Amino acid sequence: MGKNSYRKKTCKRYWVFGFHPVKAALLNPNRVSYRLILTQNAANKLQKVMGTLDHLKPEIQSSKFIADLLGSDATHQGFALEVEPLPEYRFDNLDLADGPFKPIVLLDQVTDPQNVGAILRSAEAFFGRAVITTSRNTPVESGVLAKASSGAIERIPLIRVSNLSVAMKVLKEKGCWLIGLDPFGEDELEKVLQVTSDVNIGFVMGAEGKGLRESVRNQCDYLAKIAINCTIDSLNVSNAASICLYSAQVIKNRSN
Amino acid sequence: MGKNSYRKKTCKRYWVFGFHPVKAALLNPNRVSYRLILTQNAANKLQKVMGTLDHLKPEIQSSKFIADLLGSDATHQGFALEVEPLPEYRFDNLDLADGPFKPIVLLDQVTDPQNVGAILRSAEAFFGRAVITTSRNTPVESGVLAKASSGAIERIPLIRVSNLSVAMKVLKEKGCWLIGLDPFGEDELEKVLQVTSDVNIGFVMGAEGKGLRESVRNQCDYLAKIAINCTIDSLNVSNAASICLYSAQVIKNRSN
Repeated sequence: MGKNSYRKKTCKRYWVFGFHPVKAALLNPNRVSYRLILTQNAANKLQKVMGTLDHLKPEIQSSKFIADLLGSDATHQGFALEVEPLPEYRFDNLDLADGPFKPIVLLDQVTDPQNVGAILRSAEAFFGRAVITTSRNTPVESGVLAKASSGAIERIPLIRVSNLSVAMKVLKEKGCWLIGLDPFGEDELEKVLQVTSDVNIGFVMGAEGKGLRESVRNQCDYLAKIAINCTIDSLNVSNAASICLYSAQVIKNRSN
Repeated sequence: MGKNSYRKKTCKRYWVFGFHPVKAALLNPNRVSYRLILTQNAANKLQKVMGTLDHLKPEIQSSKFIADLLGSDATHQGFALEVEPLPEYRFDNLDLADGPFKPIVLLDQVTDPQNVGAILRSAEAFFGRAVITTSRNTPVESGVLAKASSGAIERIPLIRVSNLSVAMKVLKEKGCWLIGLDPFGEDELEKVLQVTSDVNIGFVMGAEGKGLRESVRNQCDYLAKIAINCTIDSLNVSNAASICLYSAQVIKNRSN
């Protein structure tokens, strides 16, 4: 396995920080955690919302202690939990027939953990099923990603596939319609969502600047554009994803 | 003037970095800049899109030199420009009668520069007029903010007011309808936008977790909610802003 493989990079424990991410990780039965460090205030808050913390006794420390441990950039709010990365969620286990239509988001080499985290959060907010990324050129699980997801990483499968085009083919065979976001797309997003309001859909989003790779673009059933002011190059990818997920939800509700 | 005042904190030069932010700053006649550092590749790219760079002769340096100067977190792409903060844009100069209806975004103590930058970017993308923030508890102009805005900070006024409620009162007197975003809002965002599609509007957004302060909430003409899954607490504020701005644009276009 190559030096940069996902498995190798994520076999390490890391620190989840912040109220929502730590709470969500403690509530996730699939999450293995080792050490919980809280300020006294944070411990009081957590006990209020979760009851007793029997399964992992918290160490009470100062805010400075946690900042020294995690680095000054981590907005920890007094909460830190050392964890094992989540068990791998296999693409084969994704069952589109399970429950009502829920959109999927597919990310083509989106590298910023803040963006991937925010997309997980929006996916959960708008009843998404999963976020699928490439194994390479995708951030590993980390405290920053978990924080940006506001805990959604514990509840929305983040699935890594070695070949995104192949995964797209499989999704299409399962009846999922794939909507690629592209500034030069043929149709406005709204129009595409109106004709796909009664089927399973997946939004395919590329990295800012680079966009979708050709092999990925070719697998899309639709290429949709979000009309924006010509003075600016593109939207932030997590903002574009939230617009897609929200609009799909609104249009679906309207047509039911 | 207090220790934490905006004026005092922003009287310092700072580094804008990244292709779009540096290009936008160089094209902004109101931006005073001192020093332009580029890698050879970056210089070639900039000259291709901008022609000659007569007004500020670039220093050619290695990527490592720029990373050492800015810190390793700065995704500089080979572009760095030392600048003066932009001249203050006065709230009194904001003319709502200038051109077609354009939405405003008002931020109540949103403290993350990434979010404020991303909101400027979405405001430009969806034909917004300005972003208004409080003077206190708001990030100062910085390279991180400029990067997240993808250069929009050079084109969309970022206006700081000492009292947001007072500014809201003035905007209402000028005929602007203010829509506060609130998870317990009375109406769905879509419905509110349908009844305000032919007037000037402002979206009022609070910090995640805290929401709108009562004095700010009381000044809103509408309290609108974005319906989200009950398993998650809230949306990221920049994602919520992009949903509002996009939806306003779509509904306005539909009713014209």
